[in-house]
Amino acid sequence: MPATTLERVCVVLARPSHPGNIGAAARALKTMGFADLRLVAPARFPDAEATALASGAVDVLDAARRYDTLEAALTDVVFAVGFTARPRDLSHPARSLADMAPVVLGRTSEGRVALVFGNETFGLSNEELARCTALAHIPANPAYSSLNLAAAVQVACYELSVRAESFAIPAEPGRTPATGEEIEALFAHWERAMVGSGFLDPAQPKRLMERMRRLFARAGLERAEVQFLRGMLASFEKRP
Amino acid sequence: MPATTLERVCVVLARPSHPGNIGAAARALKTMGFADLRLVAPARFPDAEATALASGAVDVLDAARRYDTLEAALTDVVFAVGFTARPRDLSHPARSLADMAPVVLGRTSEGRVALVFGNETFGLSNEELARCTALAHIPANPAYSSLNLAAAVQVACYELSVRAESFAIPAEPGRTPATGEEIEALFAHWERAMVGSGFLDPAQPKRLMERMRRLFARAGLERAEVQFLRGMLASFEKRP
Repeated sequence: MPATTLERVCVVLARPSHPGNIGAAARALKTMGFADLRLVAPARFPDAEATALASGAVDVLDAARRYDTLEAALTDVVFAVGFTARPRDLSHPARSLADMAPVVLGRTSEGRVALVFGNETFGLSNEELARCTALAHIPANPAYSSLNLAAAVQVACYELSVRAESFAIPAEPGRTPATGEEIEALFAHWERAMVGSGFLDPAQPKRLMERMRRLFARAGLERAEVQFLRGMLASFEKRP
Repeated sequence: MPATTLERVCVVLARPSHPGNIGAAARALKTMGFADLRLVAPARFPDAEATALASGAVDVLDAARRYDTLEAALTDVVFAVGFTARPRDLSHPARSLADMAPVVLGRTSEGRVALVFGNETFGLSNEELARCTALAHIPANPAYSSLNLAAAVQVACYELSVRAESFAIPAEPGRTPATGEEIEALFAHWERAMVGSGFLDPAQPKRLMERMRRLFARAGLERAEVQFLRGMLASFEKRP
């Protein structure tokens, strides 16, 4: 994963109420290798409590930019993931953080991407959700799914950092993850091939593509694997 | 994953200094489906700050047990993982959290397992590390690897909960992992299909099957996915 990948991820806190959470979020970013923190209409900032909880990440806190609206915070962003505690009851379902992470990393090849977190009590408003390109949720206990805001930021940054293998002790050289675009092209190709072979009936898709996406999201595709799989699909399509 | 799995995991905080971290840790446990919090010689507990930061997890906080020593906290534990920020400079190396998570879950079949976290400033002492069965680390920014204590607990509980698929939204009911036999039959079928299409030349296999195995090993195949993929391969083979 190129060093620029994490640099292209920003974390946006929309209307945070508690300055302690802003400081703790700055610390969460820095421990996982991120640096771009954006604040939309924070209730109190700067604040001594934010500084205290940032601990050794005061540099990230001091560099945080303030915006009046989420729209303003996302002007240079090509892909914004809104975090919601509700996985289901929205117009389009939120994908789990683990499924979303490779998509987010893939999109960094196109430009800046954002992880967007809402207010501690109310989450993201419908208007804020509408400004996001995609939705993610952190799978949690249905009996009590309320992660602390900074804890949610920490988990999201951890998952992205692990997927990017930012601080992994290298096992094998030369692994390059596929970009979001390459993965989408693979799925489009796969769908064509399955329609062509009669396995996938476009009139009755039976969620086949959803199952494929789920399977390969778990694996985290590399570029070489996408090329290999597309070569295989092409050979099946040309089969005499 | 049986419901008892997470019940068999306890989180031990050794000599925590800040009561707020105890409360925030209780919240982290509950959001990820854990309930057994153990405190070794906490500096201040019970404490109003702990209660405030536990938020909706006061039940977990109230049920937390106190011990004088780590040894006492681990008497009923068969496998204890100590968390350290230093991945390398110990007698035996700490495995990454992601690598350790399946090991921890596997050990729950034998009895109670513990995730052990040290003091905010000093971490686990050498004596405490020696009481642990294994060591884990959360991969972090070498320039600033100091996660907040409760944030580290949140990340560890998240990783275990995701691995156990505790709160995964079932795409289909009855997810069952594929057996080794089913997976071998899939790869044999896949190889036949790729030889049949001309993509795989048995005289020059170019490690194609090895790459397939590696990819699908990362994903962890389910029985339904094997059936689905074999149906797809059959459709490619029969392609008119």
